[in-house]
Amino acid sequence: MAQIYERVALIGLGLIAGSMALAMRRGGLAGEITGYARSAETRKVAAEIGLVDRVCDSAADAVKGADLVVLCVPVGVMGAVAAEIGPHLQTGATVSDVGSVKRAVIDAVGPHIPEGVHFIPAHPLAGTEKSGPTSGFAELFDGRWCLIVPVEGTDATATQCLRDLWVGMGAQVDEMEADHHDLVLAVTSHAPHLIAYTMVGVADDLSRVTDTEVVNYSAAGFRDFTRIAASDPTMWRDVFLNNKDATLEILGRFTEELFALQRAIRTGDGDHLFDYFTRTRAIRRGIIEAGQDTDVADFGRVKK
Amino acid sequence: MAQIYERVALIGLGLIAGSMALAMRRGGLAGEITGYARSAETRKVAAEIGLVDRVCDSAADAVKGADLVVLCVPVGVMGAVAAEIGPHLQTGATVSDVGSVKRAVIDAVGPHIPEGVHFIPAHPLAGTEKSGPTSGFAELFDGRWCLIVPVEGTDATATQCLRDLWVGMGAQVDEMEADHHDLVLAVTSHAPHLIAYTMVGVADDLSRVTDTEVVNYSAAGFRDFTRIAASDPTMWRDVFLNNKDATLEILGRFTEELFALQRAIRTGDGDHLFDYFTRTRAIRRGIIEAGQDTDVADFGRVKK
Repeated sequence: MAQIYERVALIGLGLIAGSMALAMRRGGLAGEITGYARSAETRKVAAEIGLVDRVCDSAADAVKGADLVVLCVPVGVMGAVAAEIGPHLQTGATVSDVGSVKRAVIDAVGPHIPEGVHFIPAHPLAGTEKSGPTSGFAELFDGRWCLIVPVEGTDATATQCLRDLWVGMGAQVDEMEADHHDLVLAVTSHAPHLIAYTMVGVADDLSRVTDTEVVNYSAAGFRDFTRIAASDPTMWRDVFLNNKDATLEILGRFTEELFALQRAIRTGDGDHLFDYFTRTRAIRRGIIEAGQDTDVADFGRVKK
Repeated sequence: MAQIYERVALIGLGLIAGSMALAMRRGGLAGEITGYARSAETRKVAAEIGLVDRVCDSAADAVKGADLVVLCVPVGVMGAVAAEIGPHLQTGATVSDVGSVKRAVIDAVGPHIPEGVHFIPAHPLAGTEKSGPTSGFAELFDGRWCLIVPVEGTDATATQCLRDLWVGMGAQVDEMEADHHDLVLAVTSHAPHLIAYTMVGVADDLSRVTDTEVVNYSAAGFRDFTRIAASDPTMWRDVFLNNKDATLEILGRFTEELFALQRAIRTGDGDHLFDYFTRTRAIRRGIIEAGQDTDVADFGRVKK
């Protein structure tokens, strides 16, 4: 594959940035990859394992001379990071991000992007419950979707380069409007995460069921929730605070439906339950047919 | 491993019965394994693949001469099956089951067990989203827990034989009182399943987000819910109808907690969210340390 950018700067060196660095290297997509993380420990580890070509001591240093800068930090600090790097961006460069929320990021980052620099928000729909500089892997984006969310007046050539980069890293690319993105993600990611966190917290809190019982007897369904609820707390706090309306809307719909099913249980309406549980199977089949999950039982879960 | 039972009859030939047959064969734990399923198609497939040694045309035939009979049918039909086989049970035999609910099964099955036959309810905490006679595999119970729920006056020797069988099939065994079992399972299995079914149903219902969007962009969390929500509808209908009180109690606690988190989102209380999300990580660590899930990212999910 051909090189797309001469120098890519990754701000933040966690799961997504690390996977991008490895995927770009796999595809020969970038001449040089620089990186910066706020935590000295993260920078040290990233340098030790050679995650990027050059770990810099400031975000400003990292973005100097870069033709692509990707913000891979929690959504809540995107604005501050943009303010910091804004004055150091090269004319003609592209700034993108990987945040799970798009409207709030556009509002926070947009004002700090100088004239002559392209700002093209994006969001790769891929991840694991792991975080930190050692958690990335080159295959993370293979077959997954990356949503590009162009802002008004976005340069077509710059957008095409970013699309090519994501395709080069293994992803499929689609474009979406910011508010619709935030609603779709509230359904496919944000509400499910909050629900999983809630259920795990409830189990942990019950005095009549011990933590040992919860842990030992988790294989009957609960343990899947704990994987999701082990995701990075900072990232998720920021997601909920920055996608408030859509998340609360979906959670409202969820609660309404949950009450209806609780009522069916209470009144013994087996037909309602059976029909509901039959309908949800179809969505699973769709996901498997779309290549977004494995059909192997239990995810082909690795046995201890 | 030594043979524990001369003839084991499996009533119902789905995921659990199939896995038991294969695990018993692996361990040489049973002299002969007979099987019966209500559906002629299931019996045909089971016979074709040699799932058990002998597929019978009636439950009564299957249990004749068996020293262990295991009811592997949905919780809602346990009583009817017990009524059917009751008169054909051999004196000294043990009747057990694998139902996800224990109090209702004890109430439904108990009255049909004749004098001189041991009734020892049990519940292996293992499964996948697959069902049917071809879905079983010998390793399903390896390292998982099987809860034995003795009823009053249970024979110690008969109980020990059943424990040995489960250990021989790879499981760890513990004993638990019926009502406590139903509460623990409401937490670790029944509430999580209803929640997953609900979330998948909500996503399917939204008019502002298309099913294609839900399917394509599911990798960010939602797809894990769809695996759980692809579980057998009959089995799960019966679980909820037969563990009503405990499930509704836990769902009540869940809703209360969800409302508190929704309020934290609405009021922008980031500290509350962060603390909550940090606490839930500990439970995940406990599950991995207890050998009940893999620590590999994303369950070591098989890539397409």
